Amino acid sequence: MFWLSTLDSQLLSFVMPTPFRTSRFVEFADTDMAGIMHFAAFFRFMEAAEHALLRSLGFSVFTELGGEALTFPRVAASCVYHSPARCEQVLDIDVTVRRIGTKSVTYGFAISHEGRDVATGEMTSVCCRVPHGGQPVSVPIPDAFATKLRELTAS
Amino acid sequence: MFWLSTLDSQLLSFVMPTPFRTSRFVEFADTDMAGIMHFAAFFRFMEAAEHALLRSLGFSVFTELGGEALTFPRVAASCVYHSPARCEQVLDIDVTVRRIGTKSVTYGFAISHEGRDVATGEMTSVCCRVPHGGQPVSVPIPDAFATKLRELTAS
Amino acid sequence: MFWLSTLDSQLLSFVMPTPFRTSRFVEFADTDMAGIMHFAAFFRFMEAAEHALLRSLGFSVFTELGGEALTFPRVAASCVYHSPARCEQVLDIDVTVRRIGTKSVTYGFAISHEGRDVATGEMTSVCCRVPHGGQPVSVPIPDAFATKLRELTAS
Amino acid sequence: MFWLSTLDSQLLSFVMPTPFRTSRFVEFADTDMAGIMHFAAFFRFMEAAEHALLRSLGFSVFTELGGEALTFPRVAASCVYHSPARCEQVLDIDVTVRRIGTKSVTYGFAISHEGRDVATGEMTSVCCRVPHGGQPVSVPIPDAFATKLRELTAS
Repeated sequence: MFWLSTLDSQLLSFVMPTPFRTSRFVEFADTDMAGIMHFAAFFRFMEAAEHALLRSLGFSVFTELGGEALTFPRVAASCVYHSPARCEQVLDIDVTVRRIGTKSVTYGFAISHEGRDVATGEMTSVCCRVPHGGQPVSVPIPDAFATKLRELTAS
Repeated sequence: MFWLSTLDSQLLSFVMPTPFRTSRFVEFADTDMAGIMHFAAFFRFMEAAEHALLRSLGFSVFTELGGEALTFPRVAASCVYHSPARCEQVLDIDVTVRRIGTKSVTYGFAISHEGRDVATGEMTSVCCRVPHGGQPVSVPIPDAFATKLRELTAS
Repeated sequence: MFWLSTLDSQLLSFVMPTPFRTSRFVEFADTDMAGIMHFAAFFRFMEAAEHALLRSLGFSVFTELGGEALTFPRVAASCVYHSPARCEQVLDIDVTVRRIGTKSVTYGFAISHEGRDVATGEMTSVCCRVPHGGQPVSVPIPDAFATKLRELTAS
Repeated sequence: MFWLSTLDSQLLSFVMPTPFRTSRFVEFADTDMAGIMHFAAFFRFMEAAEHALLRSLGFSVFTELGGEALTFPRVAASCVYHSPARCEQVLDIDVTVRRIGTKSVTYGFAISHEGRDVATGEMTSVCCRVPHGGQPVSVPIPDAFATKLRELTAS
């Protein structure tokens, strides 16, 4: 049944979107005295990959809009560590858009080194306007941006 | 029934252990261009509080033992952000021992500023021996240390 | 000649002002895979000591003034390393005001551990107004602040 | 006199070696609340460029040699800041070998953004053997490495 397998592969491509991949070198300054990459450095790596994804969609990390800034502070971040990353290794970071709400977006991260699983993580960012010198206020994600993110999301 | 209320308060003190509290100043270098403490810095703050707890029990972060080091790499770390922390604020960090297994221990963190909830987090660390120049190998938590941690744990 | 030695000691106290001292704990996250405190972390330690000095004079690191911020970006920073600092050591950081100009101030730093010389450094900061979203513009150090800094300066 | 101009250009190429260039993206996590790259982050950028230079010569940052590690801790580091670097800018980092002694090497750094001068710096690193769990001991730079570095040095 040809149409079924066609449908299957379409569904497959829908529910398993191609992740966005960036790579990053583990530097000496990322290590700690245990001789491996420090656990907190993974969050900088994941943030850098999230921002690279934003740029690939034509958006900046921190956009000035009429006396305000539009930015995406985190409301949650987590990481599970599977094997150590070491100095001078190149880590591949795959980013997927897991969920997108009116004001927030949740990214999934899979970090590996030459195919070896290193860590997996998740971060939820909320779209905020930051008046100069003031508190961040959550706002709906602008349509153009939400549309592009949604195209990357699994159903 | 006097004995019951006595028992209750004993149980209460058992299931709700007094958390270990440390305080830490948010420095300029902890902030980012959004004008608030960077989300990844919270993991350094939580780690520092975990290590302060270890020292309060008479243990060091990284103990040399006959050509090997005993240390506690993370297998999981997470943080939920409730309100921003700003430069020059003093954060109170309350640590509790949530779970203790044969080889691992899970800490809970509650971070606040003058009573305002800032963030909550959790980290799981695994007891490892690190042969010089080699891979970390998980080992049972030494008895003396496990006993002290268990005293801090809710039943 | 008694008066001369009196004068000398007065001069001495004038040209060798008592430094401002802060202390800081070397954390696991400050170390690198060489097992010692990473060289770049010393600059965060020096900045924290500079800012503690500012606060001791009643000034904040980053003051909002009518839609602008007053801050002190660096124009120069240097450090000479004499001996390693290690995890869980308490470093004493002595700050002196070496030079003060119309717009800039130069601090000297002496970092030690239990009397052992660890590092010495110098940083020059320039008083700047930062319009929101704009470039920093150097301005004269406000009088009240300059006066207090001058009292800490060697003649 | 053709031969003279030939000689000149040879001399010129000798005394003005082509610098080694790396580029690096300024990430959100590199910024501070003044809206620019934090001054201490420049030292991580310079270190990364130094290590990239080492790798381009076939050497690693931290080499294990028979129960010891060969590494290059800093004895001095300095930076002069000319103009701010901002989030999402690509910085070009040119490294030159300024001086090479028996045990130490001094690098010069010129950091720019699209031709605009951002910062200049200098770092001196000392060749050390680090016995496991012990103190770094300075040793002569291995011949093969010293020879390659010398080829990059101005006379």
